[in-house]
Amino acid sequence: MEKSEVRSLCEAYRLKGAVTVPEHESKRIIQGYGVSVPRGVLVETVREAVRFAESVGFPVVVKGVSSEILHKTELQAVALDLRSASAVETACREIQSSFSERKVKTEGLLVEKMVLNGTELIAGLQNDPHFGPVIMLGTGGVLIHLLDDVTFRVLPVSRSDLKEMVEELNGKVLLRGFRGRPPLNEEALIRTLLDIARLGMDAAGLYDSMDFNPVLLTQDDAVAVDAKIVLSKTPSESGIQEEKPSIAHLDKFFEPEKVALIGASSATGKIGYVVADSLINHHYKGKVFPVTRGGKEIFGLKSYETLRDVPEKVDLLVVVVGLALVPDLLEQCRELEIPAMLIISGGGKELGGELASLEREIQQKARTYGIRVIGPNCIGCFNGYNRFDAFFQTHERLMRPKPGNISFITQSGTHGCSFLEACEVVGINKMISYGNRADVDEADMIAYLAPDPHTAVIAAYAEGLGDGRKFVQTARRLIEAHKKPIVIYKSGRTTRAAMAAQSHTGAYGGTYAVYRGAFKQSGILAVDSFEALFAASKALSMQPPAAGPKISMIGNGAGPMVNAIDLFDPYALEIAVLEPESVKTMEAHFPAFYISKNPVDVTGSATSDDYRFAMETLLEDPGVDVIMNWFVLQDTPLDEGIVDVLDRINKKSQKPILCGATGGPFTRKISRAIEEIGVPVFDTPHLWITAAKILVDWGAVCKTL
Amino acid sequence: MEKSEVRSLCEAYRLKGAVTVPEHESKRIIQGYGVSVPRGVLVETVREAVRFAESVGFPVVVKGVSSEILHKTELQAVALDLRSASAVETACREIQSSFSERKVKTEGLLVEKMVLNGTELIAGLQNDPHFGPVIMLGTGGVLIHLLDDVTFRVLPVSRSDLKEMVEELNGKVLLRGFRGRPPLNEEALIRTLLDIARLGMDAAGLYDSMDFNPVLLTQDDAVAVDAKIVLSKTPSESGIQEEKPSIAHLDKFFEPEKVALIGASSATGKIGYVVADSLINHHYKGKVFPVTRGGKEIFGLKSYETLRDVPEKVDLLVVVVGLALVPDLLEQCRELEIPAMLIISGGGKELGGELASLEREIQQKARTYGIRVIGPNCIGCFNGYNRFDAFFQTHERLMRPKPGNISFITQSGTHGCSFLEACEVVGINKMISYGNRADVDEADMIAYLAPDPHTAVIAAYAEGLGDGRKFVQTARRLIEAHKKPIVIYKSGRTTRAAMAAQSHTGAYGGTYAVYRGAFKQSGILAVDSFEALFAASKALSMQPPAAGPKISMIGNGAGPMVNAIDLFDPYALEIAVLEPESVKTMEAHFPAFYISKNPVDVTGSATSDDYRFAMETLLEDPGVDVIMNWFVLQDTPLDEGIVDVLDRINKKSQKPILCGATGGPFTRKISRAIEEIGVPVFDTPHLWITAAKILVDWGAVCKTL
Repeated sequence: MEKSEVRSLCEAYRLKGAVTVPEHESKRIIQGYGVSVPRGVLVETVREAVRFAESVGFPVVVKGVSSEILHKTELQAVALDLRSASAVETACREIQSSFSERKVKTEGLLVEKMVLNGTELIAGLQNDPHFGPVIMLGTGGVLIHLLDDVTFRVLPVSRSDLKEMVEELNGKVLLRGFRGRPPLNEEALIRTLLDIARLGMDAAGLYDSMDFNPVLLTQDDAVAVDAKIVLSKTPSESGIQEEKPSIAHLDKFFEPEKVALIGASSATGKIGYVVADSLINHHYKGKVFPVTRGGKEIFGLKSYETLRDVPEKVDLLVVVVGLALVPDLLEQCRELEIPAMLIISGGGKELGGELASLEREIQQKARTYGIRVIGPNCIGCFNGYNRFDAFFQTHERLMRPKPGNISFITQSGTHGCSFLEACEVVGINKMISYGNRADVDEADMIAYLAPDPHTAVIAAYAEGLGDGRKFVQTARRLIEAHKKPIVIYKSGRTTRAAMAAQSHTGAYGGTYAVYRGAFKQSGILAVDSFEALFAASKALSMQPPAAGPKISMIGNGAGPMVNAIDLFDPYALEIAVLEPESVKTMEAHFPAFYISKNPVDVTGSATSDDYRFAMETLLEDPGVDVIMNWFVLQDTPLDEGIVDVLDRINKKSQKPILCGATGGPFTRKISRAIEEIGVPVFDTPHLWITAAKILVDWGAVCKTL
Repeated sequence: MEKSEVRSLCEAYRLKGAVTVPEHESKRIIQGYGVSVPRGVLVETVREAVRFAESVGFPVVVKGVSSEILHKTELQAVALDLRSASAVETACREIQSSFSERKVKTEGLLVEKMVLNGTELIAGLQNDPHFGPVIMLGTGGVLIHLLDDVTFRVLPVSRSDLKEMVEELNGKVLLRGFRGRPPLNEEALIRTLLDIARLGMDAAGLYDSMDFNPVLLTQDDAVAVDAKIVLSKTPSESGIQEEKPSIAHLDKFFEPEKVALIGASSATGKIGYVVADSLINHHYKGKVFPVTRGGKEIFGLKSYETLRDVPEKVDLLVVVVGLALVPDLLEQCRELEIPAMLIISGGGKELGGELASLEREIQQKARTYGIRVIGPNCIGCFNGYNRFDAFFQTHERLMRPKPGNISFITQSGTHGCSFLEACEVVGINKMISYGNRADVDEADMIAYLAPDPHTAVIAAYAEGLGDGRKFVQTARRLIEAHKKPIVIYKSGRTTRAAMAAQSHTGAYGGTYAVYRGAFKQSGILAVDSFEALFAASKALSMQPPAAGPKISMIGNGAGPMVNAIDLFDPYALEIAVLEPESVKTMEAHFPAFYISKNPVDVTGSATSDDYRFAMETLLEDPGVDVIMNWFVLQDTPLDEGIVDVLDRINKKSQKPILCGATGGPFTRKISRAIEEIGVPVFDTPHLWITAAKILVDWGAVCKTL
């Protein structure tokens, strides 16, 4: 079927007031895209139904067809497994009377040959509010209710995306020789999904969702035995919106030479006071122009009544006054050719109502005038290299870290603060708290950061994405082009999309399922907590990707290694099986009470040199992808010498080295010294393993680049 | 059926060399206990099979019966859904030839009326190596493979234990009006499980496992359509071993007046040196007698050649010499009437072989002589009050915390160190690292700790339990008697029991599933990581149990609250719905840009007094069970005043108050000040929520006491 045909068919039904495309027509459409459907016919009379059933052979299925209803089961409009003419007759009459009782207009009765012995899957398309058209695959039947075993990808998809989707299902075991049965035709499933995906692209903008539930997979074929196309109430003729990121003027937020601070204050405790302090009294070398009503001098700098009074052309406006003043400030920026505005003040769309429209006005003006806006409702930007910051957190309370190679974008200012302080040893390159995201969005920011030579890792925290499609597609392009990892913690996972009630495709898996699939598809590394985000960033910042999932461990205490092994299964990590040679080498070198297998237990008697010997052995072992040391630093004779040992091995190692240690002041002191030579240390087995998992995942992404 | 009858039946089959009790006999047994089974008969000929099928009505099932085989399906010994005489004939012949081809002796053909339309569950009994007889219930059919949806309890069980088991299954939705079907007879299921449990007790010691897979549950009844009793190869006539804890002499490990240190050393760096330092040079006030070959003086104390030379009667021996010397030391202890020995040295059963037998000898001698032994292979004991410790970790490296109300028992010395240092602010009462557990085990230790007036919370870390049954039953009695929480982190979860291959009951859920059920059943609070164990202990140490699961939050930054809400579902917590009055009160008091619903967002503008106002409102709200504050301490105007605010509210609050904050030095300073007034602060949303969950769970346990 041609794209134009499917689009005009959908439009025709919508204009008739239909909620859905009726089943027989939906099936005609997907058949037109190559998907198998059961042999069937739409009839008007019971007699025709029986005649078809007899010709096609029992058992058959009868369904009432209407474009007015969403859920056939509610109307008892489906009768399965009819094995005789009289069963067909009874079923037809029941369906007809159910429709007429409820005064639902019907297009007729769909009689179909029943597909036997298939394994139920569910496939679907959805017009996701954040990602546009997405495809879904899930384990079907009774299982869908219990397993929530679904996976999504953003359209368009490749064959390998679809294969990955199948791999992600727990239910895949049902397809692969389950309980001694022959394997089912997965190739037919992939082909069917490719057809569905093509339909999803062609019809983009015209549907809310399409459900193919179930798709029955047999040894021979994949058959869509039900098909429902839910039409969009607000169709878009143009199909998919593909936005491209813009990095215009983003450098002004990090490298401004001259900054005007609107709302500067000399009253201690005021936000305008702390921001002025951050800009003026610390290590930022640019010129600062305080602007404040009736102000004279702030920290020894002349203060100006209005922006227009500022004697030099500034590149960045930092705004801490009420949002109501911002539209006029944008006018002034236009006039004075100021290209960038950082709005720290809150009180916009997060409060709804009039304030939301004020924020829309700001957005519109900014876009029209080509002025870039970060914020409102944020804590601003930080540049670790030139020390530019406009934080309203004092230096006493918020430590600014040294320069590093991680850049961090965050919707939450709170997490911005936490991340900065966590970076004390590893350092940071650029940090952006972007709050309400009126103009500059996540995709713009990563597009700016990825080519930045100081950035080796991009970390992101988000509760939602402004334009999910733009973000993941930008991310994919950037990862391919720059080979730098992007790691994200997406929170706010349990809110179900408002449209969920309309479509089963949308109701399963929660909203995060779509994000998870989209991240996977584009090579973005996803984590499940803020501490995991920082742990992952630190690991990526300091260590190379892992060549594979085979993990080795060395410890002078077994507990944390036992805890770690409990996480191997859920994290898809493997315990490296050492070469016999490696075991022999260690056995010959170590006392008999050391355990020279993986995990290597060098016991409380371990010295730094014992770790060196074990690490060097594992470094040489081709069966080891990651070397993980746990240190009980409370135990003598292990000592500070471990720092040098790690430094030397780290310099020559191609394999990632990750360390763990938990404890008090002494442990923290040594851990810090280890991090200062470039080897990360984690203080829980969970984060230690999270770091390994991320380096393994990043290694897998790198192989596809 | 009587206990004696089932026991002699099992014994009779075992003596005949049977692996299993044949199916028809297994069914006769469970029927004798009240469990429904399908109508059926054991026949020898095909003709008899057909005759029975015709009399009972189609469809029927035919199974080949043999006590020589474990898995009928491997022999194609089962034919389901036979709908005609000829189908029965064919099936019988196929089964017979399959048996004779493989030369398997058969007891005949079991023909049964097929049970239709039941929902599949799996029930079972298992002789668990740690807990003795346990009962299992799971979602059956195809689902069991995908869901691993099983739950266990230790026998004997109460009706309410069984009801809890059903509640724990995800598959319970299948029983309760699934997809518009009428609800199934759960009462029949409970009754059946009670019958099975009774059988499990009566036959204890004689079976490895019993599988009832599936049990079909209908609207009317629960029917065990398959039954397999796998006989024990090492039957125990006495049935269940019920060990009682012994606390004899355990006080000597914490309150010794005179201690002899065997292996004291004056050579820096030696374990015997550090232990001597710990005992002699710090705050422990007891008398210490160093014993060492050729030793003269250690830290100014006279050193003795042998234990016999020690001039006074000591109450505790601390041993850091090789284990080979311990049997003789035990002889000396017996002679000198020394009741307790702490063996720090390793080199016992953890290394296997001869060393394991040496450890067994130590165990035997200790038990025979009534000398209590903690260790070997541990870091020893600590008493926060009298400062007794014999750690081989120096004070420079391992901080000893102040006295507190948490007591901690740990199999891992590493986690012992970590826990102690984590307790810097909350303090600790007693800590025991018990290593290989040659004599004193977990149950003995908790039995000693629970009545201790200084102990309010018992925390435990274990990789395995010496005697799981003894532990959970002791724990249950102690919780009932003393109303003190016991919280445990059990690691080493993924090792599958060696017997798993023999029995489906043992193969699902991993070994932790049994522990999880046993902990739940006895009111023990279980957590999933070391950091969660400490977070839970801290919360229980400082705050009262929660009256229910309704959580309220207050924050001056939204991010961590959003993260927390993502955890409400998996942790079975609820977002408290505030009384309209509470919302009104806050709206009237706060600026318009604060959000006065739960979670209460007091924004970056919050003062300490804003928190006070919100907390006092929530304190009065009957819909709130737990008050949780998140602090962004980097933000002004929130200040140190929050400590006083919390102190005042905490003193009058019946509801638990839990705080969270993440950050650098300033945040840590204020967090510490808050903990010092008795309100716990957690540095990740995850631990903050874990603490709430534990107080909710503990509240639920308290209601049953």
